[in-house]
Amino acid sequence: MPDLVFLDGRYVPRRDALVSIEDRAFLFGDGVYEVTRAVRGALVEPERHLRRLERGLSALALPYSAADAAGLIDVSYRLLAECELTGGEALVYWQVTRGVAARSHQFPAAGTTPTVYASASPFTPPHDRRGTGVSAITLPDQRWARCDLKTVNLLPNVLAKQAAVAAGAFEAILVRDGAVTEGSTTNVWGVVDGVVWTAPRTNYILPGVTREVVLELARERGVPVREEPIFAADLPRLDEIFLTGTTNDVMPVTTLDGAPVGTGRPGPVAAQLYAALAERIGMARGD
Amino acid sequence: MPDLVFLDGRYVPRRDALVSIEDRAFLFGDGVYEVTRAVRGALVEPERHLRRLERGLSALALPYSAADAAGLIDVSYRLLAECELTGGEALVYWQVTRGVAARSHQFPAAGTTPTVYASASPFTPPHDRRGTGVSAITLPDQRWARCDLKTVNLLPNVLAKQAAVAAGAFEAILVRDGAVTEGSTTNVWGVVDGVVWTAPRTNYILPGVTREVVLELARERGVPVREEPIFAADLPRLDEIFLTGTTNDVMPVTTLDGAPVGTGRPGPVAAQLYAALAERIGMARGD
Repeated sequence: MPDLVFLDGRYVPRRDALVSIEDRAFLFGDGVYEVTRAVRGALVEPERHLRRLERGLSALALPYSAADAAGLIDVSYRLLAECELTGGEALVYWQVTRGVAARSHQFPAAGTTPTVYASASPFTPPHDRRGTGVSAITLPDQRWARCDLKTVNLLPNVLAKQAAVAAGAFEAILVRDGAVTEGSTTNVWGVVDGVVWTAPRTNYILPGVTREVVLELARERGVPVREEPIFAADLPRLDEIFLTGTTNDVMPVTTLDGAPVGTGRPGPVAAQLYAALAERIGMARGD
Repeated sequence: MPDLVFLDGRYVPRRDALVSIEDRAFLFGDGVYEVTRAVRGALVEPERHLRRLERGLSALALPYSAADAAGLIDVSYRLLAECELTGGEALVYWQVTRGVAARSHQFPAAGTTPTVYASASPFTPPHDRRGTGVSAITLPDQRWARCDLKTVNLLPNVLAKQAAVAAGAFEAILVRDGAVTEGSTTNVWGVVDGVVWTAPRTNYILPGVTREVVLELARERGVPVREEPIFAADLPRLDEIFLTGTTNDVMPVTTLDGAPVGTGRPGPVAAQLYAALAERIGMARGD
């Protein structure tokens, strides 16, 4: 299939999509990004992804307007069409950087044009792992104090994910000052006595789009939810642990640090919330 | 003058030095870098920069060997010659990234070739500011827990430096949990009653090459030095504050958060250590 990407206003083959070594993302990680799901040609929750992108652009004073950002929706649909990805599952990636300038930490001169990159890729949801659940390890959260911003300063996430993979696990669950924050690429949830817990929305977690949707779905269905810390010391007594995220939907964790979680099998709360989310994503595409 | 840079084994004009949008530095900030001074064609402390680069490559499991890294010295000398920068002051930049791969947090397949970029640029040391000293502001240190690694995850440093510039200051002095760590691009030192203090070498500061050299010079000259925390609460009673770094040598801070430091003029300890460093850099080029 054609593999075009969008770069600075043009649609080009991925292999020809090149940026300067003086791009501020390459030199400083000075940019923000989003990953959005597309199901049979329809973006899932595009407005929420757009709002989070706009919030990041604003927090970093990146000169890319809300109107410019909104244009990424049309870009995404064109990429899905050009790449022949409207029939099944896909992921759409957006990245906006502070542009190209001679290397200096401070922001470049006003008028420096942001670099804008978008691409679409085929995606296979990890349904095969949902039946058994996945394993996770806990690791200290070494990230900075603005984890609420979805920036490309992702090295701590890279190192945590790699540590998980090297340990034969699917995800690393990060612990800061004794409390679970989130996973390297997911939000983390726990269930005890039928009550669902997940870290409150602070500067130490990413406000996940799937997290928001699952919170709404739980409330609609009368599942009790507390946005309060899960302490690392309490992890062994949780009945269920699950992860949420754009690429994982709701994914049960059945092994943590080598020990079974609850019964060691996917639990009913994760199953209920996954079913609700799958229905919601189905609705989003107009079924 | 010619403006060639080195990229993946070739010397190319800077404007033609392009990397894939799938380079892991562009997507994740997954790389390390060094900035080395060159004085009249001679690199200053190249072995120390090389050792620090090797330590970062090793900590991040970046597959670029010490022998490969050592080749950057020859690359640097060729760049200085090609760019006609052997007559005065210059800066040489090295960056090694985890290479180009389809986007996924975990490390790419073994055999993925690192991207290697190097460049040389003319440099004017800020001697004009040393006579009056510079101003600084204090800011909370929002960085991650591995500030000892010189990675291109530099967004917190970018934001701190920009906040300083926006406040009309030269540098932001970062405070973590009540103690000074370092500046956005410098190490920070304080003098009280003739004793020099600077943050100990932990995971929360970059082990600066100039910091190491200044520590040696102070000890050689009998200046008492303590590698112990400077608490933010004690900043107002310091007789002197100064910054060290590859581009600043020893730079007095004479205004902090709008108030004068000590007498409000550059102090004798900074002057003594700057003179010693200038002599040392002179010796390094074989004068």
